[in-house]
Amino acid sequence: MAPPPSVAAPAVPRSGALAPLGVDQVHITGGFWGDRQRVNRDATLPHIESRLEREGWLGNFDLAARGGPMSARRGREFADSEIYKWLEAVAWQLGVEADAALEHRFRAVVGRVAAAQEPDGYLSTAFGRPGQPPRWSDLEWGHELYCLGHLFQAAVARERTRPGADDGLLGIARRAADRVCETFGPDGIEGVCGHPEIEVALAELGRLLDEPRYTAQAALFVQRRGRGLLHGIEFGAVYFQDDVPVRDAEVLRGHAVRANYLAAGAVDVAVDSGDAALLAVLRRQWAATVARRTYLTGGQGSHHQDEAFGADWELPPDRAYSETCAGIGSIMFSWRLLLATGDPRYADLIERTLFNVVATSPSADGRAFYYANTLHQRDPGAPADPDEPSGRASSSLRAPWFEVSCCPPNVARTLASLAGYVATSTAGGVQVHQYADARIAVQLAGGPVRLAMTTAYPADGEVVVRVVEAPAQPWTLTLRVPAWADGATVEVDGPDGTESTAARPGVVELQRTFAAGTEVRLQLPMRPRITRPDPRIDAVRGSVAIERGPEVLCLESVDVPIDGFDGRLDAVAIEPAGVREEGGRVLVPLLLEKDPDTPWPYAEAPRRVQADRADVPLIPYHSWAERGPSTMRVWLPAQD
Amino acid sequence: MAPPPSVAAPAVPRSGALAPLGVDQVHITGGFWGDRQRVNRDATLPHIESRLEREGWLGNFDLAARGGPMSARRGREFADSEIYKWLEAVAWQLGVEADAALEHRFRAVVGRVAAAQEPDGYLSTAFGRPGQPPRWSDLEWGHELYCLGHLFQAAVARERTRPGADDGLLGIARRAADRVCETFGPDGIEGVCGHPEIEVALAELGRLLDEPRYTAQAALFVQRRGRGLLHGIEFGAVYFQDDVPVRDAEVLRGHAVRANYLAAGAVDVAVDSGDAALLAVLRRQWAATVARRTYLTGGQGSHHQDEAFGADWELPPDRAYSETCAGIGSIMFSWRLLLATGDPRYADLIERTLFNVVATSPSADGRAFYYANTLHQRDPGAPADPDEPSGRASSSLRAPWFEVSCCPPNVARTLASLAGYVATSTAGGVQVHQYADARIAVQLAGGPVRLAMTTAYPADGEVVVRVVEAPAQPWTLTLRVPAWADGATVEVDGPDGTESTAARPGVVELQRTFAAGTEVRLQLPMRPRITRPDPRIDAVRGSVAIERGPEVLCLESVDVPIDGFDGRLDAVAIEPAGVREEGGRVLVPLLLEKDPDTPWPYAEAPRRVQADRADVPLIPYHSWAERGPSTMRVWLPAQD
Repeated sequence: MAPPPSVAAPAVPRSGALAPLGVDQVHITGGFWGDRQRVNRDATLPHIESRLEREGWLGNFDLAARGGPMSARRGREFADSEIYKWLEAVAWQLGVEADAALEHRFRAVVGRVAAAQEPDGYLSTAFGRPGQPPRWSDLEWGHELYCLGHLFQAAVARERTRPGADDGLLGIARRAADRVCETFGPDGIEGVCGHPEIEVALAELGRLLDEPRYTAQAALFVQRRGRGLLHGIEFGAVYFQDDVPVRDAEVLRGHAVRANYLAAGAVDVAVDSGDAALLAVLRRQWAATVARRTYLTGGQGSHHQDEAFGADWELPPDRAYSETCAGIGSIMFSWRLLLATGDPRYADLIERTLFNVVATSPSADGRAFYYANTLHQRDPGAPADPDEPSGRASSSLRAPWFEVSCCPPNVARTLASLAGYVATSTAGGVQVHQYADARIAVQLAGGPVRLAMTTAYPADGEVVVRVVEAPAQPWTLTLRVPAWADGATVEVDGPDGTESTAARPGVVELQRTFAAGTEVRLQLPMRPRITRPDPRIDAVRGSVAIERGPEVLCLESVDVPIDGFDGRLDAVAIEPAGVREEGGRVLVPLLLEKDPDTPWPYAEAPRRVQADRADVPLIPYHSWAERGPSTMRVWLPAQD
Repeated sequence: MAPPPSVAAPAVPRSGALAPLGVDQVHITGGFWGDRQRVNRDATLPHIESRLEREGWLGNFDLAARGGPMSARRGREFADSEIYKWLEAVAWQLGVEADAALEHRFRAVVGRVAAAQEPDGYLSTAFGRPGQPPRWSDLEWGHELYCLGHLFQAAVARERTRPGADDGLLGIARRAADRVCETFGPDGIEGVCGHPEIEVALAELGRLLDEPRYTAQAALFVQRRGRGLLHGIEFGAVYFQDDVPVRDAEVLRGHAVRANYLAAGAVDVAVDSGDAALLAVLRRQWAATVARRTYLTGGQGSHHQDEAFGADWELPPDRAYSETCAGIGSIMFSWRLLLATGDPRYADLIERTLFNVVATSPSADGRAFYYANTLHQRDPGAPADPDEPSGRASSSLRAPWFEVSCCPPNVARTLASLAGYVATSTAGGVQVHQYADARIAVQLAGGPVRLAMTTAYPADGEVVVRVVEAPAQPWTLTLRVPAWADGATVEVDGPDGTESTAARPGVVELQRTFAAGTEVRLQLPMRPRITRPDPRIDAVRGSVAIERGPEVLCLESVDVPIDGFDGRLDAVAIEPAGVREEGGRVLVPLLLEKDPDTPWPYAEAPRRVQADRADVPLIPYHSWAERGPSTMRVWLPAQD
């Protein structure tokens, strides 16, 4: 069966309020995200490839193809998945722009993966060969289905961006997916994978190939979860989201990546099966999670120990785990809800998470990453060993690679496919969700529309959408107005001059017959905002954070101009009334206490404070730790 | 060589400012600690014994004695140590009062341990037999030396309380200690144990037996540490305190139990070798740890992930790990510094930790325990499975046993030996450090002194010390005045009536010729104290805690008398000005917000608060969670 026509986008639901646009329909041409896509292409993709090779994780496939000895296998049980995520990232990148050398490297890796697949379709370098545990013998921790899920997502990305490519990746995925369905189908093992991912992947593969068996298997995995099929973990079944069936749960909980991946897959299942009740449950879970379990950055997961959500309001900034992959999972979940419902709140959270989690993880040079994204670095820590994989969290400095290195390729695939998250369409219009320098081309019912978006966002709040081509009949251009953007305005050039209207947070819908050349100018207010936390978030009581546009700002120790400052940001306070923008920088009046030594830090009489004062610039959180070891804080004690 | 005369106390340094008194010299006769000692004897000791049997950890010794098969061995690699800690606890208990049935059980267990010892003195059920890893092959995680350390402490406790007992325990310990010295001596393996404990144990065994080889080996283990001999841990060498040599470190860090045990052993080494520089370093480490890394309860360790100290000021109440064993380790460290220096600050921290960590761990019935001692329970959680070992932290309800069950027998040995921490002596006086109903009998240079101490402390602040017998010449009675006890007074009956003086925090020294029958009455002020945190402890900014005497109080959800209260203590505040004592209860005016739902918990405008009001009683933190699942908080947001 030839695959049906598809869209070159990460998620292509069978129905929904909004239709995704592919990376061939939306091109990011420059600016904040264009720069990051370039670094991703030029630095991150080769960096990851070289690490996969050097750590032997790619070599595991050669080893498996040779039949062993598998005792020489390297890396953790889920190392295969990093190769698949790299393949997915490269597939998107090749969809954005052809590149013969990259295409060659892509095919070479696919070939090595292909050689390791077993005749019945099974594929894992960690299980099933002599000297290894049997297949499916450790569903809790083995990650076999998780790895295959990432394989499927790579194949989906490839087929959607290069339909009919003769590299063999889709065939590998189909054979493996058939094996999964046979093994875990209604008459097979009643099991689920300890780490969700297969759900979202099978759903997408089912959509791509219009294969109801894959769609049904995705639904079956979602349905089975929460029924105690996974065992033996000190943290409890909640870690695996195996504590409560998906449709009975009230909030995301347990391991934050697992929770978001599962939720994303469950939206796919709900949408494809027309299960409005399940969709409503997932929307409520999203809302509860965002209201009570999400950091200001959009980051999720406050426990280091089990990489998990904490209880409601348990959001310590200094022990924020806020794993990069959890942020990406949250974007996957939100994006699917946005497509299903059209509700701009989902795009709001995506924007927040993109700017403050996804953009924070990689270094400016694209060759080092945060795994955890703390909101308060107390100790500068030491630079990561460039030659050894790092642990997951400690230093203020990003690490080139990790023992568990899920985050770098996850960032890479997200950045490479980012154009797919910028805009959507309906029969009667185009909806712009994220602001970037971009070209958008889409076929509406009335005819083709081409748009050119220009902006210095988020440095500046003006976004200009120029209509390059449009049908000679009315259609609707919808622009998202972020929830924080109170006071936004939109101006549209028209035959009678410029028409200006207020644009309240939510969306602004411009329905008309646009002449080619018409410019729509959205003005988002970029004054620094002083943000206060819900009093139930104990860990930041009495503190404020400064935001500007979609960016959360932070205070980094290297910016403190006080003589004798020892680099510690423990004893500080700011005067919120004095926060201002000056010369393109946000300045805060900082009080830096002279560090008093007290033998016991609890007393009836509050400690007296003697403080130095200085105006100190804040920087976007995503750009911190580019100037050597430092300390940093997002939440600043306020002296009102 | 016959052991020299010794004192029946847990630590008997070769020199020091103060000399310990044994559990045969100080008897706790009732009151707060007497009650707990009784529960420990009647409930906890049998409970632990039955769990050790039921979980097969005791059976491991029988298995080893039979020669295997060791694949049937149960429990973690350090399970042996729990048997040894139980033996130590029972040894102290038998030192406090003879009990033929308990003596019989003690000897039966010693016999089973003896049967598992190998001819060359090596003893471990986890290593060295067919099918097991070789001896000393995993110094990082194997805990072989750690387990032997607890064996030595049991043997020391036994020999000090029943010198020359023919149960064989001391012989087992000597043979094992000789094996350790041969293996790890100056010409042996240059290694240390991943978990300190052998240091403090060898030091004490060396003191008991006057065996310089053991003393030297303890010093060698302390000396070797911090030189990178331990490898392969994601958390870094700091976890094992192997990052910096003991004498170069500035503060306790890494795993909190390991850090304290090591520090205690290092004090022993410093004292026995007359190393004043090392002692000074350890005093500074203690001071820095207490000033910046200790919870109000005395608890230490703010990380769940690695059971470790956090950075300075990283003291989240809701994620407080504050492991029971770390509290006990802290008491070991403080007690040794107190004996060495006589500085009452060490006794202050011991008191705080005893009342708020050690007393908190066991349930009132002595058959369930906290492993971690959180200061803020957000979710009530579910009761522990009575039949399965629990994880280390989650529910508000104590668990009867743990997969890692170090804490219950550690509490048991501490409570059984508690009389040893009440008082000390010098040639010219008696120093009372902890207040309890107790009898004290000690031989001073001038003759015997007998004291009877009577108090309802901490319910009441009056402590009466009656001189039962005293020499007809001057000696000094020293009473500790806790740092919190501003306004304390002391009255002494004398021939001319009662003499009253202020007793400033620190110590009050009463030097005179006491007539038998003289009563000394210490009055400690027990008004509730409103305690505020150092502003550098971000996690509790804007909150207060209420203390009364040595007890930290807490608010438990079951005490909130507001209609419709859902059991959550998230949205609360108190009015500190209204805190008062009434009818023996401390009442706080509580504002309980009606739980508002906001879609996003960060905003420019502070959220309006609508609140119910009620006067709510606080309870001592150590007594919480005895009334079913609940939520709790020590730190209460203050509305000043």
